[in-house]
Amino acid sequence: MSTFGTHFRVTTYGESHCLSVGCIVDGVPPGMRLTEADIQPQMTRRRPGQSAITTPRNEKDRVEIQSGTEFGITLGTPIGMRVMNENQRPKDYGNNTMDRFPRPSHADWTYLEKYGVKASSGGGRSSARETIGRVAAGAIAEKYLREAYGVEIVAFTASIGKEYLFTPTPEHPTASTNPEFLDLIDKIDRKIVDSFVPVRCPSEEASKRMEKIVEEYRDRQDSIGGTVTCVIRNVPTGLGEPCFDKLEAILAHAMLSIPATKGFEIGSGFGGCQVPGSIHNDPFIKAPAQNGTHGPGRPRLTTKTNNSGGIQGGISNGAHVYFNVGFKPPATIGQAQQTAGYDETDGVLEAKGRHDPCVVPRAVPIVESMAALAIMDAVMAQQSRQMARSLLPPLDQTVPLTGGGAQANGEGAKVEVDR
Amino acid sequence: MSTFGTHFRVTTYGESHCLSVGCIVDGVPPGMRLTEADIQPQMTRRRPGQSAITTPRNEKDRVEIQSGTEFGITLGTPIGMRVMNENQRPKDYGNNTMDRFPRPSHADWTYLEKYGVKASSGGGRSSARETIGRVAAGAIAEKYLREAYGVEIVAFTASIGKEYLFTPTPEHPTASTNPEFLDLIDKIDRKIVDSFVPVRCPSEEASKRMEKIVEEYRDRQDSIGGTVTCVIRNVPTGLGEPCFDKLEAILAHAMLSIPATKGFEIGSGFGGCQVPGSIHNDPFIKAPAQNGTHGPGRPRLTTKTNNSGGIQGGISNGAHVYFNVGFKPPATIGQAQQTAGYDETDGVLEAKGRHDPCVVPRAVPIVESMAALAIMDAVMAQQSRQMARSLLPPLDQTVPLTGGGAQANGEGAKVEVDR
Amino acid sequence: MSTFGTHFRVTTYGESHCLSVGCIVDGVPPGMRLTEADIQPQMTRRRPGQSAITTPRNEKDRVEIQSGTEFGITLGTPIGMRVMNENQRPKDYGNNTMDRFPRPSHADWTYLEKYGVKASSGGGRSSARETIGRVAAGAIAEKYLREAYGVEIVAFTASIGKEYLFTPTPEHPTASTNPEFLDLIDKIDRKIVDSFVPVRCPSEEASKRMEKIVEEYRDRQDSIGGTVTCVIRNVPTGLGEPCFDKLEAILAHAMLSIPATKGFEIGSGFGGCQVPGSIHNDPFIKAPAQNGTHGPGRPRLTTKTNNSGGIQGGISNGAHVYFNVGFKPPATIGQAQQTAGYDETDGVLEAKGRHDPCVVPRAVPIVESMAALAIMDAVMAQQSRQMARSLLPPLDQTVPLTGGGAQANGEGAKVEVDR
Amino acid sequence: MSTFGTHFRVTTYGESHCLSVGCIVDGVPPGMRLTEADIQPQMTRRRPGQSAITTPRNEKDRVEIQSGTEFGITLGTPIGMRVMNENQRPKDYGNNTMDRFPRPSHADWTYLEKYGVKASSGGGRSSARETIGRVAAGAIAEKYLREAYGVEIVAFTASIGKEYLFTPTPEHPTASTNPEFLDLIDKIDRKIVDSFVPVRCPSEEASKRMEKIVEEYRDRQDSIGGTVTCVIRNVPTGLGEPCFDKLEAILAHAMLSIPATKGFEIGSGFGGCQVPGSIHNDPFIKAPAQNGTHGPGRPRLTTKTNNSGGIQGGISNGAHVYFNVGFKPPATIGQAQQTAGYDETDGVLEAKGRHDPCVVPRAVPIVESMAALAIMDAVMAQQSRQMARSLLPPLDQTVPLTGGGAQANGEGAKVEVDR
Repeated sequence: MSTFGTHFRVTTYGESHCLSVGCIVDGVPPGMRLTEADIQPQMTRRRPGQSAITTPRNEKDRVEIQSGTEFGITLGTPIGMRVMNENQRPKDYGNNTMDRFPRPSHADWTYLEKYGVKASSGGGRSSARETIGRVAAGAIAEKYLREAYGVEIVAFTASIGKEYLFTPTPEHPTASTNPEFLDLIDKIDRKIVDSFVPVRCPSEEASKRMEKIVEEYRDRQDSIGGTVTCVIRNVPTGLGEPCFDKLEAILAHAMLSIPATKGFEIGSGFGGCQVPGSIHNDPFIKAPAQNGTHGPGRPRLTTKTNNSGGIQGGISNGAHVYFNVGFKPPATIGQAQQTAGYDETDGVLEAKGRHDPCVVPRAVPIVESMAALAIMDAVMAQQSRQMARSLLPPLDQTVPLTGGGAQANGEGAKVEVDR
Repeated sequence: MSTFGTHFRVTTYGESHCLSVGCIVDGVPPGMRLTEADIQPQMTRRRPGQSAITTPRNEKDRVEIQSGTEFGITLGTPIGMRVMNENQRPKDYGNNTMDRFPRPSHADWTYLEKYGVKASSGGGRSSARETIGRVAAGAIAEKYLREAYGVEIVAFTASIGKEYLFTPTPEHPTASTNPEFLDLIDKIDRKIVDSFVPVRCPSEEASKRMEKIVEEYRDRQDSIGGTVTCVIRNVPTGLGEPCFDKLEAILAHAMLSIPATKGFEIGSGFGGCQVPGSIHNDPFIKAPAQNGTHGPGRPRLTTKTNNSGGIQGGISNGAHVYFNVGFKPPATIGQAQQTAGYDETDGVLEAKGRHDPCVVPRAVPIVESMAALAIMDAVMAQQSRQMARSLLPPLDQTVPLTGGGAQANGEGAKVEVDR
Repeated sequence: MSTFGTHFRVTTYGESHCLSVGCIVDGVPPGMRLTEADIQPQMTRRRPGQSAITTPRNEKDRVEIQSGTEFGITLGTPIGMRVMNENQRPKDYGNNTMDRFPRPSHADWTYLEKYGVKASSGGGRSSARETIGRVAAGAIAEKYLREAYGVEIVAFTASIGKEYLFTPTPEHPTASTNPEFLDLIDKIDRKIVDSFVPVRCPSEEASKRMEKIVEEYRDRQDSIGGTVTCVIRNVPTGLGEPCFDKLEAILAHAMLSIPATKGFEIGSGFGGCQVPGSIHNDPFIKAPAQNGTHGPGRPRLTTKTNNSGGIQGGISNGAHVYFNVGFKPPATIGQAQQTAGYDETDGVLEAKGRHDPCVVPRAVPIVESMAALAIMDAVMAQQSRQMARSLLPPLDQTVPLTGGGAQANGEGAKVEVDR
Repeated sequence: MSTFGTHFRVTTYGESHCLSVGCIVDGVPPGMRLTEADIQPQMTRRRPGQSAITTPRNEKDRVEIQSGTEFGITLGTPIGMRVMNENQRPKDYGNNTMDRFPRPSHADWTYLEKYGVKASSGGGRSSARETIGRVAAGAIAEKYLREAYGVEIVAFTASIGKEYLFTPTPEHPTASTNPEFLDLIDKIDRKIVDSFVPVRCPSEEASKRMEKIVEEYRDRQDSIGGTVTCVIRNVPTGLGEPCFDKLEAILAHAMLSIPATKGFEIGSGFGGCQVPGSIHNDPFIKAPAQNGTHGPGRPRLTTKTNNSGGIQGGISNGAHVYFNVGFKPPATIGQAQQTAGYDETDGVLEAKGRHDPCVVPRAVPIVESMAALAIMDAVMAQQSRQMARSLLPPLDQTVPLTGGGAQANGEGAKVEVDR
């Protein structure tokens, strides 16, 4: 359906050619300062056209809060939000070749098979405009996570075509074992990312390579895909619900719901499947003393390495959560395409107008928004449990922490394995 | 939570050391023949120990239907299922080193952070035994899908470590453009897969390479990961709910909820992000005449290539749905590991007993089961819509199929792009 | 939360003083003709002020469809709807006595306890304006039910204060055994109901009595409650999901979610609890031949009496579903009220302006709307099951219908009872 | 479906004639002491046969915890529970007259219409055995509520047939204005209720009247209905989610899901609809000083009267929540009944064996159990919000509590009304 989340629940509406697009966000914590100014920046980063990134006064896609706040403070009631469509008039049938051909690798055909009605825009809600509601809702989630826990969410372009920020090597089949990568995700922020327009890859050298390849495909009237890496810092521990709603499962669901996505990897990802357990395992170490300005405290232990991507057994362990998302080459290309029409006979389809040869840079804020929604919902599930637990009478110690035998006598601790 | 699906809803329970594990499956269509004999084969394929695969009489993990059937026919009411645990007695505290060390890359630490209670088994529901409920429920879903639509679901090992069945090449960065791969997923069945014990990779040559590498890691007291490819044939069109519950998003959710998974790719996957749109797009062609023995009819169009993996705009198009799932190296290894204990001081942890150096072959039926659950839930959502639609008065033609202009006069059709 | 339904899912937003109120309706069947003209009539019936009922051109509360239709046909995608608020400006704090006193039996105090934020309107979403979204969504559900199954939903005022349309008697403690009542619910339509302005009680005599009592309470600056009866005709059989989502449970949930409701009774209701089983049981009879213009056929059997209110074992049996809903006297009265303020000291609260002494007549379309939403969601749940079932191979006869022994040999059939 | 609750989620399975009945309870707070001994007492109170009430050693319906606890402490993971059926063998078809007649006012006919399969037990999950899972799960909820908040839930028989504990009078059309009733619900406990076997009505005089009427109907081979009143004390404030999941809506849903229920009233109920607003409104008063042994504190204000039944605007205000539930006369009676068979021809149905002439006393623990489930789910929803709110930076005062003008200068405060 058009709803994401159980506790922090976002419901969106809107096609390309209707009156408006928007959403209702239910479950927003009451008493949080919130105005359109908290939401608009990500809306603007999401706009098509790379120049939009640096233009401070983009008057398009203005979000308008309908309900749920008063005097700039959330009431705890649902927040309605709306963005007007500019091109509201559905096209007439008959004078448009989209009526004859389902566009290859678009949603025209599948929407018709699903609903039995052909929207004039072809793919109905598969339009990129549908992501507006996600970004608006994500900005609210993100504000809460930042204020309550100091959570920071930053995404950036990791590859375009075969050009990678961190090219896999035999030594590092996954970036998760690469110190440079780990250093980057520890420090990167959105300002740095946006300084690398138009590709949003935080490296002078790599972004040059990527720009070049995008231009090549553009010139060929072709398109190209790529990947986005996203890191979430200061994630509280304990997020993710066994066994079907593991945190990585929710993140995967969130990311694969973004149009044009082809894959998701958590932590070491597919590359990590090539690494031996002896290297892949993340040993525990005592967590560094925290400056503790944010939230309800950080965990006592952390991991020395982070191949797990901050999630173990489906639950966040307090380390950085990071993941990759793959985006396919845009289906709309300038080249003529041989394809069958709705009447089952072959023909040639040619797209006119300007097309984006690569959606990856523009997907960056959408990935961040969906990450915020996924984490926020998991946070509220865990908050319910934490408060429920806190009201129960205390138990005797359930973990004997002070045995200390293993270290003292030099013996290795031994564990058994269950299947 | 421990529930998967909205219409076909599976709820599971059980840890390693409790009395039993099991599930309740709600929403099973009434009037389907069903006994334990329909469920046990996948339960047996899931059992640990490769020899189990070929042993016909494995008396362990016998599933017992509690409710929801009479005289071998489903009533439409919830089906309760139960499998006894053999090792029911939780270990006493104090005489086990698992009380002192959270195992690296296991769930011991995160379960403690989440629940504030340490189960004797360490990771609570992160145990592999939890997957029993998934496999039992998946077998029911699968039976319905096969009977109603002729759906076939087959998974197999695609790589272990760096050994691939189809090694990516510059020409084929993704197997989805490789005719050999496409041919394989068109024909493969479970009998063939199981003939390649112990690795379940359907290629004499590749399975040799994989066996060898597994043995190497076993001998080193180490472990290794790999990937599973799964194909679903005869998928009805129209599955997947825009915009958050796209079919690939539900599949990704399902797969990343399996223990030890690191990534998910649909169709061309991450490799497809390196391929130009002009190659990646799947042109439509008229579907071949169908022998039509199954279900409510197949679509009029199909695609010439299938980089989409049978899903476009989040909705199934009738072509084979296929995807890859990455599994990390098992966290339990024989080697000693330096790590911090619950008391924040370092020590050495060593696992005793026998460990599985690679979970990939055994994950094959679990992947199939979760695929069945994901497809089944999407099927029932779409069935509700189809029947709702069928009762409405007919509309005038909403798609002008007979224009035919583009082909007739040789002009290319032109489309505009929305953002 | 602000969401009702699983398959036909309505999410609403909006307080009294925000920009707009509205809703998103997800799961609307595609291919149905739908414009604002289908929705506005019930919106207008819901407007405050009895004169509104007869005024054909009420320009207030105009609903505006944002998405989900094209050329007046539903696309199957979410339908966004919006109604502007006229009084958008929240009141300033400090110069309003509502800042000092939580109004007795209003939601001011409980909203503050729940959210910790005091909205200027006091009770946040407890405002009657919140029901706008329900009525808009209900009109869509109702249109589908009418077109697909010929469902008719009609509500009317059954009592105000102690004045009843059918006063309970020792012979008829419940109207369900009263032939006059059964005749009324068989024929009543909205046009008849609206002809009895201002009380909407379909009886010249009873509506006179009711009008009189409302005037008395109005003159005393007091208020009075009453009850609404609603009948749903042509309900398909098989609606309602055992065991927690029985049809009467869903209707009760729907009705008790309407502001100011105090009770719900299905069929014979509380009065039926005084009637012996020998009278209360509804014997089966062969259903009359149907004129069969609508939908997928009516059941072969019906009941001779209908104390069950069309629901047995939580599932509709095809007979009229009918129920009563109780509404309390409005909490806002002209009289001065002694009550404690937020500062815990006593004071006197006096409401200024005009108040409605009785909400019952205006609640009539709201009850109908919620009934439509409840039935619609149950219909789609059952449609999914019906279509799922229809694709399975046929079974041997599971009910031996032709034994005929009991009738033939004059023996009474004997059954055993389970506990 | 067979699931109740969102945060504290109960899923049940089981018919009369299958292997077992049971449930999975997900979302149980971790770290709570829990064994079968916490659950069995309510299971035993639910058993048929009034003598069971006083028999300490009833070995039937023993509940067995399958998972989710270790060493008597909840782990936070799902708790599986199971109770064996004694009569596991479904009856053969053909030699039972239940195959020929759908029993009047039973679920035989509607189950067949819904599922298209006739279970040998006739009504499938409509059997009273289905309530076992509710009672088992309710006992867990109740234990948490008592430990965390001191919540007390007590139900009792309020009427049988026309015999009432508090007969409505012109002065008190609702018991909510009757001081004797208010005194009773302030003090009643289960021990007192159970001392009034067999009817569970806490009054020597009324229980005599009720016993007599039950005997009369039994002797006539007939049956009779009645009502149960339930009170919940020490309910935290802030429970209930606007606007569709108001606390009374959830309670109504819960109660009407119990087999044989016909109605639900909150607080003053239907009788309250006859009372003027000036009497029905509950003025606020300063709450009495609390002994404060339990939970997170009680509210500063309470109400002088409690016609609201502890709920205003759909949200609990801290006063006692109380409600009535109506139960119909049991459908199974000894008298012969004329009714149509599945083959549409008339016949005579006669039940053999012993039948319960009145289910009301036995429904008492089931009402308590469903109340516990409803309150528990609402508690966890509110706990999530409370904790989420607590981590936000503090706001400036949003309610000016100290103005004091109204009281000081003797002016009445004036409020305006929104529609």
